[in-house]
Amino acid sequence: MIIDRVRREELRNKIMTADEAAMFIKDGMIMATSGFTPSGYPKAVPLALAKRAENGEKLNLTIITGASVGDELDGALSRTGVMVRRYPYQTNKSSRDAINAGKIMYQDMHLSHVAQFINYGFLGKINVAVIEALAITEEGGIIPTTSVGISPQAVKNADIVIVEINTTQPMELEGMHDIYITENPPQRKPIPIINPGDRIGTPYIPCDPQKIVAIVECDIKDNVRPLGAIDEDSKKISGHIIEFLEHEVKMGRLPKNLLPLQSGVGSVANAVLGGLTESKFENLTCYTEVIQDSMLDLIDAGKVTVASGCSLTPSEEGLKRLHENMKHYAKYCILRPLEISNHPEVARRLGVIAMNTAIEFDIYGHVNSTNIMGSRMMNGLGGSGDFTRNAYLSIFTTVSTAKGGDISSVVPMVSHVDHTEHDVSIVVTEQGLADLRNTSPTERAKRIIEKCVHPDYKPMLKDYFERASKGKFKHEPHIINEALSFHGRFMETGTMKIK
Amino acid sequence: MIIDRVRREELRNKIMTADEAAMFIKDGMIMATSGFTPSGYPKAVPLALAKRAENGEKLNLTIITGASVGDELDGALSRTGVMVRRYPYQTNKSSRDAINAGKIMYQDMHLSHVAQFINYGFLGKINVAVIEALAITEEGGIIPTTSVGISPQAVKNADIVIVEINTTQPMELEGMHDIYITENPPQRKPIPIINPGDRIGTPYIPCDPQKIVAIVECDIKDNVRPLGAIDEDSKKISGHIIEFLEHEVKMGRLPKNLLPLQSGVGSVANAVLGGLTESKFENLTCYTEVIQDSMLDLIDAGKVTVASGCSLTPSEEGLKRLHENMKHYAKYCILRPLEISNHPEVARRLGVIAMNTAIEFDIYGHVNSTNIMGSRMMNGLGGSGDFTRNAYLSIFTTVSTAKGGDISSVVPMVSHVDHTEHDVSIVVTEQGLADLRNTSPTERAKRIIEKCVHPDYKPMLKDYFERASKGKFKHEPHIINEALSFHGRFMETGTMKIK
Ligand SMILES: CC(C)(COP(=O)(O)OP(=O)(O)OC[C@H]1O[C@@H](n2cnc3c(N)ncnc32)[C@H](O)[C@@H]1OP(=O)(O)O)[C@@H](O)C(=O)NCCC(=O)NCCS
Ligand SMILES: CC(C)(COP(=O)(O)OP(=O)(O)OC[C@H]1O[C@@H](n2cnc3c(N)ncnc32)[C@H](O)[C@@H]1OP(=O)(O)O)[C@@H](O)C(=O)NCCC(=O)NCCS
Repeated sequence: MIIDRVRREELRNKIMTADEAAMFIKDGMIMATSGFTPSGYPKAVPLALAKRAENGEKLNLTIITGASVGDELDGALSRTGVMVRRYPYQTNKSSRDAINAGKIMYQDMHLSHVAQFINYGFLGKINVAVIEALAITEEGGIIPTTSVGISPQAVKNADIVIVEINTTQPMELEGMHDIYITENPPQRKPIPIINPGDRIGTPYIPCDPQKIVAIVECDIKDNVRPLGAIDEDSKKISGHIIEFLEHEVKMGRLPKNLLPLQSGVGSVANAVLGGLTESKFENLTCYTEVIQDSMLDLIDAGKVTVASGCSLTPSEEGLKRLHENMKHYAKYCILRPLEISNHPEVARRLGVIAMNTAIEFDIYGHVNSTNIMGSRMMNGLGGSGDFTRNAYLSIFTTVSTAKGGDISSVVPMVSHVDHTEHDVSIVVTEQGLADLRNTSPTERAKRIIEKCVHPDYKPMLKDYFERASKGKFKHEPHIINEALSFHGRFMETGTMKIK
Repeated sequence: MIIDRVRREELRNKIMTADEAAMFIKDGMIMATSGFTPSGYPKAVPLALAKRAENGEKLNLTIITGASVGDELDGALSRTGVMVRRYPYQTNKSSRDAINAGKIMYQDMHLSHVAQFINYGFLGKINVAVIEALAITEEGGIIPTTSVGISPQAVKNADIVIVEINTTQPMELEGMHDIYITENPPQRKPIPIINPGDRIGTPYIPCDPQKIVAIVECDIKDNVRPLGAIDEDSKKISGHIIEFLEHEVKMGRLPKNLLPLQSGVGSVANAVLGGLTESKFENLTCYTEVIQDSMLDLIDAGKVTVASGCSLTPSEEGLKRLHENMKHYAKYCILRPLEISNHPEVARRLGVIAMNTAIEFDIYGHVNSTNIMGSRMMNGLGGSGDFTRNAYLSIFTTVSTAKGGDISSVVPMVSHVDHTEHDVSIVVTEQGLADLRNTSPTERAKRIIEKCVHPDYKPMLKDYFERASKGKFKHEPHIINEALSFHGRFMETGTMKIK
């Protein structure tokens, strides 16, 4: 029973079923929800909405989240056609397919932009916020669960708020959150974070209790993604990065305990952090988005003094471990609103070491994080741009080939740019690491081809670069009719290799 | 005589000729200089260096500036082959040609990165700083002239400092500068600017007097660029922007006096600010890089309460006006180090309205600011990325065609990306303005083709978009073999039009 978790008594009469609560949500509305890579998102109310659509009701919604959410929200509402517009990031197969079929209007955005664009009114009037919560305080404050995301902005800007109290979420999470909301310009003040562990806000989301129209009980667990076992390629990538970081410390360009680490999503990212567990580095700090399994390992190994993020997203196994030792992990972890976890101001001030995964990069250092073969949306760029541009060091990783070797992840020109040559300092594949700092484009090309490209593709890329360099303009030489020919060939023949 | 301008007596014996001072600079050195879009840069010492090279001496230097500098530096040292490596921005014909001939290794960088990368040691050890100054204070502080640029970081990190006292620069500039230097992570603190006019530092650049090895007199004026007369197309662009801003005020999304304006370089940028002089807006503020003629007009019209920038770069006519009324203009203007004028933290906090010029943009909203036909460097991206990504509104302008109509500035896919679809909220040509906020890529394409494209190219772009949309992946539809075909056709036939 959730009654104990609704500490403000007058609100207890708002407790109702998910079906009843969902009736507040009407065709054409803009709904903003909790949830971040996929944890802490509402589940019961979205499933009730899907049911209505399945029963033939016309129900089209615009949905704004912090980042990716689980299948109960993105999946169910994509398959039923409820979701017609979506911001800013997703990883669900059904929503991805609907986006690529042109059925969902999807805007891929820098995560740090979402919170402020909601406040600015740029994404339209938020009609309803649906927030997963641990509990509601006596003041009516909403205590988030495993993520914070855009919940503070959603609650602030929505006409009405629906709270889903998730009873599978352990009460030990209370106190882990640090909620701070910025004003709009011209009223903005500096964000007073100087160390990754600084607490600057409240442990709950302030909310006018009048706005809360429904409180729903939910006992569905976060639909966490399994993490693949760490493979050989990821281990090699991790090894290259650690060797490089050790070298930077030796050269006096990094402190011994490095600088706050930011680490992207996915298995390579998990492996890189994993590698640090066995490294000599100590007293590490993290200022990142997602706290994954390898972070728990780092904490257990006594390597990390503080992990600041926007969500706890362990695997099923990690979740068990987390629940069993929540008090222990709570000492190290802080969960912040996405606006703060991803804030350029804080990332630049702290000087994060940003490590993110690319789909492909090109010989001049431009990175594609999102669109396969230029057109097909994978997930979105998430927070990679927030961190990369403002990092002390921005590192991109990828395995040098994909699809069993038929795709080279290093190409003459990427088919979509998410991070430009101006934003990328280091690129790494299992083949090696290329340091792109203080290089001209042609120097970069030589280094990338030498260090990062798979042997199968080295001669082809060398040949392209050499022929392009014979052209009249030698700053960033391209043969414009051939720049995307690797992609063209793959689409025509199924391989980037020349048969 | 400059003796009065060297207020610290013991330094007066360092006064020498430019030729003598230049002898401190040796082959292979890294030289960092004052100067920003092109004002306040050293002139006598670079000309002395060029002379040495002309006389047959082998002299190869890496040169780091704040942004573009005049012909006495970029021009003379490019033509004589002294400049072999260059960061981060230039606009000089000789240096541009040498870069495109592959003779200068040029790294185009976000201006805000330069200052911190110098501090981090990423650009190598700075051997010598050459700084144009108004005077040297009793403490040995260096008072800059018409720009600040990277001078604080150059002085701080260089082994030795050469000061060029420019006697053509009026002493009334004293007091206009506000020098604040950030620490490196993990020691960084918030930058305490809350309003564009806030003063947070000293009116001079602190300098250990021991480091000053030479002081040189110079009487060459800043080699300012003439601004073209404001043409019809620029007026139309300016009109579209002002209409849009008025609409945003009406919708409650902007305060009546707008938010701090940032305006890029060039004639369109100048025209846009010019248009504001005749608008109804009042009490405007500017947080920008370059203070151009139109800013003086805005001050004279009583429209602007404060103009914060990194340099004063008026035309010859504007310079005269400035010199004659320096005391008046000094009340409105603040000159800051590039690290602060372009700082993402401050730009985001203040919520600047960023207005910059594109070379081309594509139907999905990606912007090319730098490389013509993918390979040929024009100037560089300058501070456009610093402001764009962190703006409240980021606006890009360009005339819809170039080269007498043979080039469409709107293309299926840009040939080089400097600003991604995630960073651009508004695009404007003389044809019209497209608001790209809260749109999916396909919605953007329709809007851009309708509003911004020149009638000669509308059918071609419509046709491309429609055919691409028939492909399997409909998120950001491209025909990969045709995406760059407009550029290919121009390079083959001299026009993007189909003959
Ligand atoms: C880039 C990203 C998709 C990689 O994720 P991952 O789990 O490490 O990726 P995988 O290696 O499993 O590859 C994912 C898919 O892309 C395909 N792929 C990878 N490289 C490719 C390439 N160069 N060309 C075409 N397809 C490629 C894989 O084959 C796989 O396809 P499948 O699902 O059909 O099997 C992911 O990191 C991401 O979304 N990044 C952008 C957001 C981000 O950086 N967030 C961090 C801060 S929020
Ligand atoms: C983009 C930029 C070059 C435009 O400057 P401008 O003075 O308004 O430009 P012009 O219209 O005179 O065009 C400059 C040249 O580019 C050419 N050009 C313009 N659009 C073109 C296009 N789409 N394709 C090819 N060439 C093009 C022009 O023909 C002209 O060539 P020319 O010198 O051979 O005659 C300039 O604004 C810039 O360098 N921007 C990047 C840096 C920046 O934004 N700074 C602002 C903050 S620091």
